[in-house]
Amino acid sequence: MKKSIFTSLILLTAISLFAQGDPALTEVWDPVPRVVTPGQSSSDAPSDAIVLYNGKDLLHWMGLEGGDVKWKNENNILTVVPGTGDIKSKESFGDCQLHIEWRTPAEVSGSGQGRGNSGIFLMSRYELQVLDNYNNVTYSNGQAGSIYKQHMPQVNVCRPPGEWQTYDIIFTAPRFNDDGTLKSAARITVLQNGVLIQNNISLWGSTEYIGIAKYEKHADKLPLVLQNHGNKVSYRNIWIREL
Amino acid sequence: MKKSIFTSLILLTAISLFAQGDPALTEVWDPVPRVVTPGQSSSDAPSDAIVLYNGKDLLHWMGLEGGDVKWKNENNILTVVPGTGDIKSKESFGDCQLHIEWRTPAEVSGSGQGRGNSGIFLMSRYELQVLDNYNNVTYSNGQAGSIYKQHMPQVNVCRPPGEWQTYDIIFTAPRFNDDGTLKSAARITVLQNGVLIQNNISLWGSTEYIGIAKYEKHADKLPLVLQNHGNKVSYRNIWIREL
Amino acid sequence: MKKSIFTSLILLTAISLFAQGDPALTEVWDPVPRVVTPGQSSSDAPSDAIVLYNGKDLLHWMGLEGGDVKWKNENNILTVVPGTGDIKSKESFGDCQLHIEWRTPAEVSGSGQGRGNSGIFLMSRYELQVLDNYNNVTYSNGQAGSIYKQHMPQVNVCRPPGEWQTYDIIFTAPRFNDDGTLKSAARITVLQNGVLIQNNISLWGSTEYIGIAKYEKHADKLPLVLQNHGNKVSYRNIWIREL
Amino acid sequence: MKKSIFTSLILLTAISLFAQGDPALTEVWDPVPRVVTPGQSSSDAPSDAIVLYNGKDLLHWMGLEGGDVKWKNENNILTVVPGTGDIKSKESFGDCQLHIEWRTPAEVSGSGQGRGNSGIFLMSRYELQVLDNYNNVTYSNGQAGSIYKQHMPQVNVCRPPGEWQTYDIIFTAPRFNDDGTLKSAARITVLQNGVLIQNNISLWGSTEYIGIAKYEKHADKLPLVLQNHGNKVSYRNIWIREL
Repeated sequence: MKKSIFTSLILLTAISLFAQGDPALTEVWDPVPRVVTPGQSSSDAPSDAIVLYNGKDLLHWMGLEGGDVKWKNENNILTVVPGTGDIKSKESFGDCQLHIEWRTPAEVSGSGQGRGNSGIFLMSRYELQVLDNYNNVTYSNGQAGSIYKQHMPQVNVCRPPGEWQTYDIIFTAPRFNDDGTLKSAARITVLQNGVLIQNNISLWGSTEYIGIAKYEKHADKLPLVLQNHGNKVSYRNIWIREL
Repeated sequence: MKKSIFTSLILLTAISLFAQGDPALTEVWDPVPRVVTPGQSSSDAPSDAIVLYNGKDLLHWMGLEGGDVKWKNENNILTVVPGTGDIKSKESFGDCQLHIEWRTPAEVSGSGQGRGNSGIFLMSRYELQVLDNYNNVTYSNGQAGSIYKQHMPQVNVCRPPGEWQTYDIIFTAPRFNDDGTLKSAARITVLQNGVLIQNNISLWGSTEYIGIAKYEKHADKLPLVLQNHGNKVSYRNIWIREL
Repeated sequence: MKKSIFTSLILLTAISLFAQGDPALTEVWDPVPRVVTPGQSSSDAPSDAIVLYNGKDLLHWMGLEGGDVKWKNENNILTVVPGTGDIKSKESFGDCQLHIEWRTPAEVSGSGQGRGNSGIFLMSRYELQVLDNYNNVTYSNGQAGSIYKQHMPQVNVCRPPGEWQTYDIIFTAPRFNDDGTLKSAARITVLQNGVLIQNNISLWGSTEYIGIAKYEKHADKLPLVLQNHGNKVSYRNIWIREL
Repeated sequence: MKKSIFTSLILLTAISLFAQGDPALTEVWDPVPRVVTPGQSSSDAPSDAIVLYNGKDLLHWMGLEGGDVKWKNENNILTVVPGTGDIKSKESFGDCQLHIEWRTPAEVSGSGQGRGNSGIFLMSRYELQVLDNYNNVTYSNGQAGSIYKQHMPQVNVCRPPGEWQTYDIIFTAPRFNDDGTLKSAARITVLQNGVLIQNNISLWGSTEYIGIAKYEKHADKLPLVLQNHGNKVSYRNIWIREL
């Protein structure tokens, strides 16, 4: 009799579980995402990032045409020196998450594209615009946070000149076919000062000042370039994660 | 003669500009993205956000089944009180950017899904998991930062229990056809503690504990729900921007 | 005893099902996709399509500026009459699947963009190029199957002049925010003569002959336009399904 | 004087062109999409396709576990022989366009999943369902045109049993990270009998009969598999283009 009761209990449990369904069926145990230690703040690099600029040395950078960087590296800040050219990272990157902080000069001079102009070129060719757009009118697809001459930002969330601003960038590199045609376009998501300004939009091609953007087949990874547009724009806390 | 030289100069200039191309042709001047004032830090809401929890009142919240929130609201922190049910926002949201900070109990108890478990349900049904996953093993598609039982996070970037963590979420609501079929799936991008963990991935449907996720046609906007899973998980600095 | 064996059998079955998992847990029974009767061939419209041109009447069409269509409607073929302007559908469409067949003149004259030129303007503004590109060189982003001046086709799969060709088009309309900014770009997939030439690519904006493509907020649905570019291009078997 | 007028004319022309903008600035001349000769009908392979089954030999196929194909190859039709197992292509494929025609038995027997069941497994693991769903009820995410147990088709556009049906499939393979996590999900677009039934949707992982779909890192290219589900389903005109 005891046995009979015991059997019945098992039976009821099994039937009940069967009717209800087993939650374990929808668990996935592998792979196990690797552990990354976040930075103390969003300015700090997580453990799997390459710190491209830590406020001290310029070991990760060189001039666009080679040679040493001639920008000013002082007080943990890297500042454009007009007339010294663009700079580029020594390492190359494709898909990546990039954190970068920038500041346009406190002393305002110029207007439109002439005020606090610089730029971040992913893969040396896809430009996220840096500009002092605080009470400064320019074309929408050329303002701060735009993919220059392709996509205006969703909102203008610029801080005043002289204040530090952040870009958190998620970039997917384009893919090409063997014959040079485009397989899939580059895509980008950008938060400026914590606010979404570009949401996984497709890039049209390399940034062009004149004429149409277009894709030309290139390597899977290319250096990051910071533009010298003749204005004393500053950078700090630059870190990048390969995706 | 002077006139002739002047004419020639204009002519040359015009021809030169024509040959080179006019950069103004690729400028877009409207619309002009609206101005948003960013918060002082990423914890602070930008000017176009609704501050759902500012550390003081619970005016934006109610119990899941109606009535007042019975969670603890103290020292600018909102903490789950086991046995008092989930809470939901009074306003409803569709496409949105959500910033939210959370903390699992410093005193660790339990393991797996039993440790520091809560959850953020976008549109009351799409769950971004909250869990203490610091040296705590569980199924990958159920760990912190997962879209529960759908997408594991790209990395495990959890802070230790007792420390504050952030989610910055970009959510695109699903669209439905008139006949109830799905037009386009929900998509989500998530940064945890500043690190990308979900990159514009497509959701399979409403979160299900048992069985398959599926879409059922619902309103364009629905409340945000915070889960009471019986663990004293805390929240603060909750703001949301409609996209 | 019989009862005991019977009980054991049920027990074993239940346990076995439980261990194995229940396939019914991942079945979704609703909604039920509605039934559509396909056409006899791909030229024939399925039952849920609007037949815009059936080879007989022009009841679904009007001149671009109003008034009757002045193109030639003969032998089940609709042919451009140079000098009579573009034509547009009386109904308006947003997201859609469009099947359309076209033929450039058997008698070749002109070259480049001057040979067998016409165009299909989704929503009156997003042009899929129609051109005789059989042994006819032009710019890649202006050849048959291109999204004119935005996206070249993946391959050139043109038939010779005088032969009928097909486009099967899947179009997702752009979405706009209240303030006129773009929420999500238009996307298009195209098969030409059964071969993929555009794969869910994002459009840059309205087609422009000069200067940059850009989006201007417009209605959710707009007429389909067929271009009169002065060449005697013909059309037939035009049907459209709203998505 | 004549010279003066001539000069003025050039001047005016140049200025006018400059003001209007130069359409050549938005032309892209390279790369030039390669030429593909389309088939005579959509059943015929274009020139860059691999014809996997031409109605004659089975040179491109083998048994799932190796060995010869034991299905019936007769009258240009390849038909499942129950009990002889699945078959797979000798070549492997990743991103591709696949055209395939299928027919369920004219003589109807069975119901639900038991009637005219077969399946097309892209990369040997992502199943597009083949089933006789003409007046035959089954779960929506298991009917013909479904990504089995993941995505129901947008519409049920099945022909009656005994009639030939077509699938035109555009498939993007998933990408994986080195650590085995998913980089980007597989995506698929399907037209059944010329009608859109899946529009660039994201797959959840490998098809599973029981439990949850999930991704496991695999090769970039894998064989195409046709399922033997015990019903005499037939195939013909199978061609594939690598994308």
